[in-house]
This record gives sequence, structure tokens and C-alpha cells, in this order.
Amino acid sequence: MFNKIALIGIGLIGSSIALAARQKGLAKNIAISTRKQQTLDKAKSLNLGDEYFLDAKEAVKDADLIILCTPIGTFENIVKNIAPSLKQGAILSDVGSVKGHVQKILSPLIPKEIHFIPAHPMAGTEYSGPEAGFSSLFEGRGCMLTPSEKQDKSAIKLLSDFWQGLGSNVEIMDAEHHDLVVAITSHVPHLIAYNIVGTASDLEGVSKSEVIKYSAGGFRDFTRIAASDPIMWRDVFLTNRNAVLEMLEKFLGDLDELKSAVDRGDGDALEELFTRTRAIRRSIIEAGQEIDMADFGREK
Amino acid sequence: MFNKIALIGIGLIGSSIALAARQKGLAKNIAISTRKQQTLDKAKSLNLGDEYFLDAKEAVKDADLIILCTPIGTFENIVKNIAPSLKQGAILSDVGSVKGHVQKILSPLIPKEIHFIPAHPMAGTEYSGPEAGFSSLFEGRGCMLTPSEKQDKSAIKLLSDFWQGLGSNVEIMDAEHHDLVVAITSHVPHLIAYNIVGTASDLEGVSKSEVIKYSAGGFRDFTRIAASDPIMWRDVFLTNRNAVLEMLEKFLGDLDELKSAVDRGDGDALEELFTRTRAIRRSIIEAGQEIDMADFGREK
Repeated sequence: MFNKIALIGIGLIGSSIALAARQKGLAKNIAISTRKQQTLDKAKSLNLGDEYFLDAKEAVKDADLIILCTPIGTFENIVKNIAPSLKQGAILSDVGSVKGHVQKILSPLIPKEIHFIPAHPMAGTEYSGPEAGFSSLFEGRGCMLTPSEKQDKSAIKLLSDFWQGLGSNVEIMDAEHHDLVVAITSHVPHLIAYNIVGTASDLEGVSKSEVIKYSAGGFRDFTRIAASDPIMWRDVFLTNRNAVLEMLEKFLGDLDELKSAVDRGDGDALEELFTRTRAIRRSIIEAGQEIDMADFGREK
Repeated sequence: MFNKIALIGIGLIGSSIALAARQKGLAKNIAISTRKQQTLDKAKSLNLGDEYFLDAKEAVKDADLIILCTPIGTFENIVKNIAPSLKQGAILSDVGSVKGHVQKILSPLIPKEIHFIPAHPMAGTEYSGPEAGFSSLFEGRGCMLTPSEKQDKSAIKLLSDFWQGLGSNVEIMDAEHHDLVVAITSHVPHLIAYNIVGTASDLEGVSKSEVIKYSAGGFRDFTRIAASDPIMWRDVFLTNRNAVLEMLEKFLGDLDELKSAVDRGDGDALEELFTRTRAIRRSIIEAGQEIDMADFGREK
């Protein structure tokens, strides 16, 4: 499909793209670039690509598709570095979890003859690094593209086909709406998970070892999300601040009501909410976004 | 080990006790009681016990161990009903997630010659009903007993051995401390999960179908907990109010700080928290309370 793709960054997402693109025959040549020699060696030993570079601008030479797979905070310097080396007509994309900020920061840096199409595959695990990737990561998961309105339709189609080839359900939306959708389906859930794990690990009345010992009561579920890559998530919250704070306000408003229902012992209000939320999980399972096994299938 | 045990209520926990006790040879005879004919028929068809009753007081006759496996709100009436039929020297226990309230409400109702030893196995899934049980549910999980200080030591030892026989790690603690431990490891996590699933399902800017479609970004994890049995959880929040509100205040205090770190773009504070929380999950895995696979093992 592409003669050459360049992956800048080879963590969980980059390595999963490499493995899936190879497996599905979507790229003849895969160039990989990462700043650290150790990570590059790891990628090599895992045979993730065909060419390996410490300098991103060497990796992008002659590439038809370049995907930034590093934390969002690194994008600006990377694009400044690679811009002069990009092939005319190439597609430049990324996998960052925030799109408005990325578009705003990068658009002025990108040469006119390059098709800039930001993307966000909604997939991942709590593990990071080149060895964490696997080829089925994107299967059945959403991938949102947020090109500007004047972007070339055939380039959009090409990138869309690529992500569909990796197994994703592709949808095109505007960056602002994207940022709101992920604030509630991903960013605020992460913020809350990080927060409660922080709270539980630093209490006066309950020891950390008790928290660990009795974590199967629900707490341990939150620790999975709160074990996600710290740098990647720091950058998410630094760059999607407004949407995150907007959704967090809604969460806090609802929590205030729920707290008051607990306080006044309003069993009907509690039961009504708990019944409604049970139905949401059923819908997610029916939509193929969750497995239909008790406890994520982890227990039995 | 016991000649006869009686399980009052045969949902996820009751049926798991029945299956495990049978498998480990901990009871010669298992009597099951549940209010609804349909549930009783289901328990029969699953061959969970030896005797089946719609009236709990018939099930407890001659039983050496009686375990209440119904939502906490039903305990008072059940104990009033069965108290006159309990065998002298029998152990009466339960599996409720709150212990202070249970002890306060039930203690005055229980005849002196009965050994009342409240218990709480810290295990479960988001599914309920007799068909949801499985014999390995308690393996490696904590089970807290909260007997009063004057309770007979040999009776405590007997119940402790029973739960160890089911695979649990048994610990004896006072009811008040128990309620604080579970408030942070189980009850507040559930409250938060219920709350965010409620928030996400009723937004103006983002549709419910978008929330479902993009739930793999983290949100779907919360829906598992928020799919837990509504009646059971209603009763938990009605009966552990003080400890839940105390822990919720700590969570909210921390969240306020975290929100302010996001608001002022304090990357260092975010990274510090996100690094600290990642280590907690590692400790939980090392303590054998979580599996060491990406994404609970559900993805690949």
C-alpha cells in the first residue's frame, strides 16, 4: 500500500503499527526512528522494521507516510527537525490523544506540499516500550482522523484505508469535538484513576499494605489505568486542559449529587443510578468494545 | 468439616461458596434457601446443594454454620425469622461488605448460645445470580472476620478454617477498621465508577453512542465495576455511609489539587503522581492480587 512508512517513536503504539502493517502487507519498507540507542537496539532485536535511525530526519527520507508515535510534548521539535527532509506529497500523521493542540502547534511548521492528517487510534494497554506492541491492538477499535477542511481528499482516503487495514474503525471528525469525546471516554477516567490510586496509597487510617491486600474489591481495576505511561499522560493533560476541566466539572457536579444521596440515605436514587449504569456496560459489550466475560475474563 | 451448612441467598457469592465447599469437602450437607421460586429452581438445576427451601428458617434447622448471602438490607428480617430455629452452638455468619452496621443491627437479635461471627470475603465479579458462581472465586483473596472480642475462640477458628478451606487469606480485625479499609479499596472505587458512567451516559456535547464507540480509551474499565449488582451496592452505601464519606472527602481533596495542577499546567506534579501510581500496580501484582498481563489479559 505504501512504499515506505516512517515511524518516529517505537513504543507500544509505534511497535503495534509496525507489526500490524507488516502482517497486513501495508508497507514495503518500514523505517524506525527513536532517540535512545537502547530503544533502537530493542526494536532491531524484535525485527520491527527494515531501517533504523537515531535521527528522525534520516528516517523520513522518501517516506510516503510518516507517523509521530512519541509523547505529544515532543512533536514540535520533531517536526521542526524533519520538515525540510519530507518528501513532496507525503502524508504526515501522528497518534496523539489530543488533536486541537497538535493541529495548532504543528500546522504552521509543515510545508504546504505535505498532507498533514492528525490521527488518534483509541487503543492501548498499560504497558509501554517496543516490546509491549502486538499486531491486533487496533482491531475493532476506533481511530479518529481530524484533517482540516481543505485537506486533500485522496490523502485522507489513503490514511483512512491504512488504519482500516490495521483493523480500526475509522471516523473523521473535527479536532475540537474529538478532544471533548476523548476527555470523557479516556482522559477524565485516567485522571480519576490516577487520583484514587494516589489517595489510597497515602492514607492515615489504612496502610498501603492493606490497600494492596484487599485491592480485589474494585481498587485494583483502577490501578491498571493508573499504570499507563506517565510522560504520555502528562502531555495529554498539559494539552487538553480545557476539555478535561469541562468534563471534570460535570463529573464533580454529578458526584456532589451522589454524595448527597449517600449522605441522606436515599436508596431509590442510588438504585436508579446503579441500574442505569449496568445497562451501559451491556451496550459496550454489544458494540464489540468489551468482552462478555466476568471480571474481564481474568478470574477463572 | 461441617455436618450441615445453610446458605441463605444463592447469588454470586452463595453459589460460589456452595461449589467450593462441595469441591473441597467442607460440608456433608448444603441447605439452600432463597425467596424466589425461580432462583431456587435455578439453584436446583445447577445442583448447588442438597436441600432447597423458600423459607430460611427451614433451611437452618440442624445447620452447624449458617451464612447470610443476601444484600445487607435483608439481614434484619432474615435473622428475626431464623433466630428461633437455630441449633444451639451453631455459627451464624454473613458475607456482607459492611461490618459495623451488620454487627450493630444483628447482635441484639441473636440468641446467646449462637456464635455470631461476621465475615466479608473480598471477591466478586460484576455478574450476579446462582449461575454466576464458580468454585475458585475466593482463591488467594482476602476474607475478613470481625467477631466481637468476647466471641468463642474455637468457633472463630472453625469459621477461619472454613474460609481458608475455600482458598481465602483470612484476617481478623475489628468492624470499624474493616469498614474503613473497604471504603477505600472497594466502596469509593465503586461510587466513582458508578458516577463517571452516569456522567458519560448523559452529556450534551458527546452522544451516548460516541461514548460506547470510544470506550476502549479507559472508560470501559469503569463500566465493569459500575455493572455490579444494584441492590447489593445500594445497601452498601446505605450502611457504610460514614466511612464512605470520610474516604470520599480525601479523594475529593486530592482531586482538587490534581485539577489545579492540570489548570496551571504543572507537568512535574502530574508526572510525579503518575509515576507513583504506576508502582502501586506493580506491588499489587507482586502480592498476587492481580494478573501480570497487559489489559487484564483481555486483548490479545
